Amino acid sequence: MTTGVTHVVIVGAGFGGLEAAKALADAPPSVNVTVIDKRNHHTFQPLLYQVATAGLNPSDIAQPIRHIIGRQANCRVLMADVTAVDPAARTLTTTLGPLPYDYLIAATGATHAYFGHDEWERLAPGLKTIEDALDIRRRILLAFERAEASTDPAEQDRHMTFVVVGAGPTGVELAGAIQEIATHTLRGQYRSIDTTASRVVLLEAGPRVLPTFAEKLSTAAADQLRSLGVDVFTDRAVTDIDGKGVDTNEGRIEASTVLWAAGVAASSLGRSLAEGTGAELDRSGRVKVGPSLTLPGFDNVFVIGDLAAATDAKGVTVPGVAPAAQQGARHAVACIEADLDGRPRPRFAYFDKGSMATVGRSRAVVEIRQLRFSGFVAWVTWWLVHIWSLVGFRSRATVMASWAWQYVTRRRDARLITNTPPLDP
Amino acid sequence: MTTGVTHVVIVGAGFGGLEAAKALADAPPSVNVTVIDKRNHHTFQPLLYQVATAGLNPSDIAQPIRHIIGRQANCRVLMADVTAVDPAARTLTTTLGPLPYDYLIAATGATHAYFGHDEWERLAPGLKTIEDALDIRRRILLAFERAEASTDPAEQDRHMTFVVVGAGPTGVELAGAIQEIATHTLRGQYRSIDTTASRVVLLEAGPRVLPTFAEKLSTAAADQLRSLGVDVFTDRAVTDIDGKGVDTNEGRIEASTVLWAAGVAASSLGRSLAEGTGAELDRSGRVKVGPSLTLPGFDNVFVIGDLAAATDAKGVTVPGVAPAAQQGARHAVACIEADLDGRPRPRFAYFDKGSMATVGRSRAVVEIRQLRFSGFVAWVTWWLVHIWSLVGFRSRATVMASWAWQYVTRRRDARLITNTPPLDP
Repeated sequence: MTTGVTHVVIVGAGFGGLEAAKALADAPPSVNVTVIDKRNHHTFQPLLYQVATAGLNPSDIAQPIRHIIGRQANCRVLMADVTAVDPAARTLTTTLGPLPYDYLIAATGATHAYFGHDEWERLAPGLKTIEDALDIRRRILLAFERAEASTDPAEQDRHMTFVVVGAGPTGVELAGAIQEIATHTLRGQYRSIDTTASRVVLLEAGPRVLPTFAEKLSTAAADQLRSLGVDVFTDRAVTDIDGKGVDTNEGRIEASTVLWAAGVAASSLGRSLAEGTGAELDRSGRVKVGPSLTLPGFDNVFVIGDLAAATDAKGVTVPGVAPAAQQGARHAVACIEADLDGRPRPRFAYFDKGSMATVGRSRAVVEIRQLRFSGFVAWVTWWLVHIWSLVGFRSRATVMASWAWQYVTRRRDARLITNTPPLDP
Repeated sequence: MTTGVTHVVIVGAGFGGLEAAKALADAPPSVNVTVIDKRNHHTFQPLLYQVATAGLNPSDIAQPIRHIIGRQANCRVLMADVTAVDPAARTLTTTLGPLPYDYLIAATGATHAYFGHDEWERLAPGLKTIEDALDIRRRILLAFERAEASTDPAEQDRHMTFVVVGAGPTGVELAGAIQEIATHTLRGQYRSIDTTASRVVLLEAGPRVLPTFAEKLSTAAADQLRSLGVDVFTDRAVTDIDGKGVDTNEGRIEASTVLWAAGVAASSLGRSLAEGTGAELDRSGRVKVGPSLTLPGFDNVFVIGDLAAATDAKGVTVPGVAPAAQQGARHAVACIEADLDGRPRPRFAYFDKGSMATVGRSRAVVEIRQLRFSGFVAWVTWWLVHIWSLVGFRSRATVMASWAWQYVTRRRDARLITNTPPLDP
């Protein structure tokens, strides 16, 4: 900082990283910002399940990072992987070479966790990236093609059974959308199978679906799922997954398609941050930071979003949701600006905006502090909030149009199977 | 046919195959139709270059085959690869097992041809499928990312040079669109490079661009390309391609991105049709059929579209364009229906609907028999014809909206780099 230029490096262009970059737009002219991400695009993760279920196109919910912040004069965008951090030397190791920083905002988020069963990843993909969503879309659509091509009833049943493991918001959304595809979208387009006879199974190891919501809403969501035709099982833990089904504590389910929505772990940058500094990681690999959101001993390194295990100044645990990441980003930027002005840093107070999950057509649950409701009004609320939050005007308009179209026709127009070898049952 | 059921198998769901399936919708109830394709979607190839250049999403120009014809009562859709034909036994070998037929309509189209240099395919991809288009999109966008990440001016120049080999309609369209991206879409979003300084080179081995068009239109197209900023070279043959550029008969061009639009070959089903029957293939591997469009000696096997080298009843050579494939399909169906009615088969007369190519924003050439024009009116004509021909209402509306948006803002919203390892210069 003695050079007169302050270089702020932001790793990860998710909700937290992008918010930090934007908040730095009005920083003093001495501030230079670099945003580094291994992808060229920001992904609006709450709607990934719509890509996975053929309702939306990748570019409806993903935008080039350059497009969002590339014209911000003090901001440079690099596409590269960050492999290590050396907080003492204030330098990142990247696939493009070393990158020094004055301030670091680490916001690389989370990935899937298979609880020690990494071999399940190949058999039961999770949903974090556009590639994941396209892989899941391919698996769902191929399963119906395989069922149509088969003449063995048991095999057809297996191809027409879809198991979703984990009943958090993603699992609930996936299960509802697959049921909708089977019951309505694909109806009548096959000759050997009746897609409406498909079976969608949602498995939750805990006692209720949507465990982070109020109990009343868990019950409502389970009822809504069942009314769609989804088989919901709680207290049902997966003990094994192979290419033809899942074993649980209460027996086996034959299914060609198994999707994983059961657990997340912080991305590997957390380990690198801990290694050099002795910082602690929690069970999910998140870096334990105090209410300052800084790496212990390094007040120029902020850890925000899903990469951090944080409590705010009042002792409230900060959850792994987009608004929390964005609030963390604004706090980090406020601290940097306070340092530059010679002011004391502000305290971080997390503001809970509530949470919501959609279950399917016209069905959702919403929880905003003490306000809890479900059904059609909840679904409209969910819809408006998500459309409003989508990055960029065109995405908002296209997604709105796509959904209106889907709602009326029950069509899903992104039903393409790409990057696949020829069908071979 | 003695069973009372006539089974018509259509291989390939391109323009020809789909048209045949639709034409069979009103066939007598004794007719069963199977459409078999190795993909689950029909691709509107004339607009593939828009996906390759980030203007449109895959599902804007590709539709599930089932969605188009899956509800036609006499029609079954199978996703599988056809590996061989045995015309004497009236049976196809497929990845799902043997498939017998009474009538076969072979419509598997064409793929790229590298004139004996198959090793160039990896270095200079062609544009025939959605996967090709996404690969090309990735290469173009990654080239700019690599240029931004580089500090070596020569390397930056190489990354910012795009060579398109072959100046038929696809090559002309690609070159114009890449120039548009570099000049307008990406402008101002990079810090180390000025994308408007990019170089787009169009190489044509023959004496003029758009060689199948009238000479006046070739000149117009070359002028339009040059006015956009494209470097157009004719009589320039490629002698070698490596990862860093192309060698030509008049020297080397350093370029990270080389795209292939120089030649097509019929798909491999042609060889299988010839092997069993002694039918002749032309230089491009197309099956030589008479004006009946049938395999010599097998009047129950029709070969249509890009897979056939055909002349019509008046001796006119049938070109490899979508309307010709569709006319061939309708002829095949008319012959089958004539057989079933005990009538003599009709003669095939090709009707030339004209041809057109777009060069870029507001620029195109159109040739309809003696009517030849270029410029803005040609572009509007091209635009209307292509929108009109797009399969399905939603695609039409979405593409229209996307283009209107692109035209006004010069934005291209599908600029996602997917399925790529981290950047590593």
